[in-house]
Amino acid sequence: MGGMDLGHLLQDNGSKIVLFVWDGLGGIGSGPGGKTELEAARTPNADRLACEGCCGLLEPVYPGVTPGSGPGHLALFGYDPVEYQIGRGALEAAGVGFDLQHGDVAARLNFCTLDSKGHITDRRAGRIPNDESKKVLEKLAKAIREVDGVQVLWSPVKEHRALLVLRGEGLGDGVEDTDPQKTGVAPLEPRTSDDLKESARTAAVAAKVLRQAREVLAGEPKANGVLARGFAKRPHWPSVAERFGLKAAVVAGTPMYRGVAKLVGMTELPAFNELDRNVASLAEHWSEFDYFFLHFKHTDKAGEDGDFAAKVKAIEEADRAIPLLEKLGPDVLMVTADHSTPTALKAHSWHPVPVVLSAKTVRRDTVDRFDEVACIAGGLSLRPSTHLMPLALGHAGRLAKFGA
Amino acid sequence: MGGMDLGHLLQDNGSKIVLFVWDGLGGIGSGPGGKTELEAARTPNADRLACEGCCGLLEPVYPGVTPGSGPGHLALFGYDPVEYQIGRGALEAAGVGFDLQHGDVAARLNFCTLDSKGHITDRRAGRIPNDESKKVLEKLAKAIREVDGVQVLWSPVKEHRALLVLRGEGLGDGVEDTDPQKTGVAPLEPRTSDDLKESARTAAVAAKVLRQAREVLAGEPKANGVLARGFAKRPHWPSVAERFGLKAAVVAGTPMYRGVAKLVGMTELPAFNELDRNVASLAEHWSEFDYFFLHFKHTDKAGEDGDFAAKVKAIEEADRAIPLLEKLGPDVLMVTADHSTPTALKAHSWHPVPVVLSAKTVRRDTVDRFDEVACIAGGLSLRPSTHLMPLALGHAGRLAKFGA
Repeated sequence: MGGMDLGHLLQDNGSKIVLFVWDGLGGIGSGPGGKTELEAARTPNADRLACEGCCGLLEPVYPGVTPGSGPGHLALFGYDPVEYQIGRGALEAAGVGFDLQHGDVAARLNFCTLDSKGHITDRRAGRIPNDESKKVLEKLAKAIREVDGVQVLWSPVKEHRALLVLRGEGLGDGVEDTDPQKTGVAPLEPRTSDDLKESARTAAVAAKVLRQAREVLAGEPKANGVLARGFAKRPHWPSVAERFGLKAAVVAGTPMYRGVAKLVGMTELPAFNELDRNVASLAEHWSEFDYFFLHFKHTDKAGEDGDFAAKVKAIEEADRAIPLLEKLGPDVLMVTADHSTPTALKAHSWHPVPVVLSAKTVRRDTVDRFDEVACIAGGLSLRPSTHLMPLALGHAGRLAKFGA
Repeated sequence: MGGMDLGHLLQDNGSKIVLFVWDGLGGIGSGPGGKTELEAARTPNADRLACEGCCGLLEPVYPGVTPGSGPGHLALFGYDPVEYQIGRGALEAAGVGFDLQHGDVAARLNFCTLDSKGHITDRRAGRIPNDESKKVLEKLAKAIREVDGVQVLWSPVKEHRALLVLRGEGLGDGVEDTDPQKTGVAPLEPRTSDDLKESARTAAVAAKVLRQAREVLAGEPKANGVLARGFAKRPHWPSVAERFGLKAAVVAGTPMYRGVAKLVGMTELPAFNELDRNVASLAEHWSEFDYFFLHFKHTDKAGEDGDFAAKVKAIEEADRAIPLLEKLGPDVLMVTADHSTPTALKAHSWHPVPVVLSAKTVRRDTVDRFDEVACIAGGLSLRPSTHLMPLALGHAGRLAKFGA
């Protein structure tokens, strides 16, 4: 997918762009009457945008490839996710506001439940609540502060999830997950995925840290073990300001999405679990930024839970926020998703996601309804998600003419 | 967009291809009833081609990116405009038939009007007519022939526009425009845009030339100053003969379009301001070439003037030329545009352009009307403009099977 360098075409005309992501929006026709969740939902506002604007479908990573949350969003921000890869650890760190320094190696931890043989009985330790998780983590943080000259840092995330950061000289991030992805077996030992001695050092330190952690947690009823995933360093990426000339902000209630946005230089605005409050937060800072990324999580959650009705309801909730965004007078307003999460599959999927782009400069098409099937006939056609950012810039008047 | 090397597949079967470009054709729905200019126009011939042929939409440079005239055409000729970049000076030189030699640096000149303080009051010197412009230019050509061992050549273009060519050893083209793009200020000094000493030499010579020019023109009522833009050398590019096995000709009334066609090795045929005469010129040389590029300018001009009715009229004029081209019996006849120029925007724009390809070998689609909205449903789909040349070659039977 590569991408054209737009640097010399950028012009700041003061226009405002809003990207409203309905996480995991796309479905497959599995509901009553073979409808997708979006087809089944009442979305008068998105339908109106579809009437007035231009629709299409976006393919986040590559045909047939199911995107994770990071890649799906990076593509929407104009970053080819195959080129810009990041480990889950670094993403999680950015998401909880952990100031990952260059050279640090971060990993995502899941508390798990082990039986007397050391075999996993629950990979998520019964999804222990935040306060319980925090308490357990404090125990670890007190007991394990340094291993082989490497500083060991711990940070809570949410429920059974936490962050482990190793800080020291000569650490690499070529280390595989210790989560075997199934129960009834012991956690894996951290193994290197490359031949670098830096990765070997991280693997050795991590092995000791995880062994000590198990000893510290031995008496816990649920969270008596830890699984480490996605060992990663913080990447050095050009920001959306550098690449697209945008002063950008993110409003997202879930750490992961703030994390990925911050990796491309977006400023974090106050965010909550309620969409209305997030829109209000965005509105409060309207004058300060050119580009706003507003994230809505419930659609994806309902999809992963396989709850068709809940996903329909979440979609209708998101739809009601559209007029609040329109009132702010954005020059370009886009509604789309980072990936599909069909309730029928209870998981992310590779299916293209619908997109609508609304702007005064748009060429209308014949689509009058915002859903996966109607959008096939849209003027934006089917294209990589990475095209959305340049399209937004074009429609916002932020790109000068190319060539004489 | 890159592109596949078709060299080893080329076969000359004597077939003929016609590319008929309606410059700036694409619009956005801004006319009566929300129609585009093309939707509003009566185009029975293009509609018939759409019925019989295959339609689609082309994106000239990159999503959201507005093409200049050069890039828009290069893409149609099968040259990725991001890879094949050319400065305005070199393009203008080719357009007026100036034999730019390797090492020459060309710049486009605009005559302008300066007030007594040396500030610009009109960046186009009241668009002085050709004969007046020619007279002023002759004055310059007589007075300024050499500066610091560099030969100075002058050539008229049209109205207030002219060409300046510097010929000598060690000249670079990393020099910025002296046109400040606004009135009320003095012309800029030529500054280098890179660190090469060759560019510094060009900047120094150009500064002297422009200073002397102002002295020579001091007594002129309108054209008493000059602005230089697009300092550039002639690029070395493979021709359409080399890349696509085509003996190609251009018929275009406006120098710019002849210029870009000649840069890829097309032969210039006699051209006029009237479309009928241009078609006749093409017909006269029918037996001599494989590929004909016929350019029609009025659509773009009306778009830039923001004159919806004039653009509709120009479209209808172009449509009437189609039967004349069909009578010649081309194997492939294509109607499309180099870029959109919506009257609502009064400028080039990034919106994809409609295309129809007519050939005996075409697979028909359901599109029965040639316009931006109908073409979305076409069999050619939305794709980069650079795909059009290989599609033309394929439909003309000029590409052998790839692989066994």
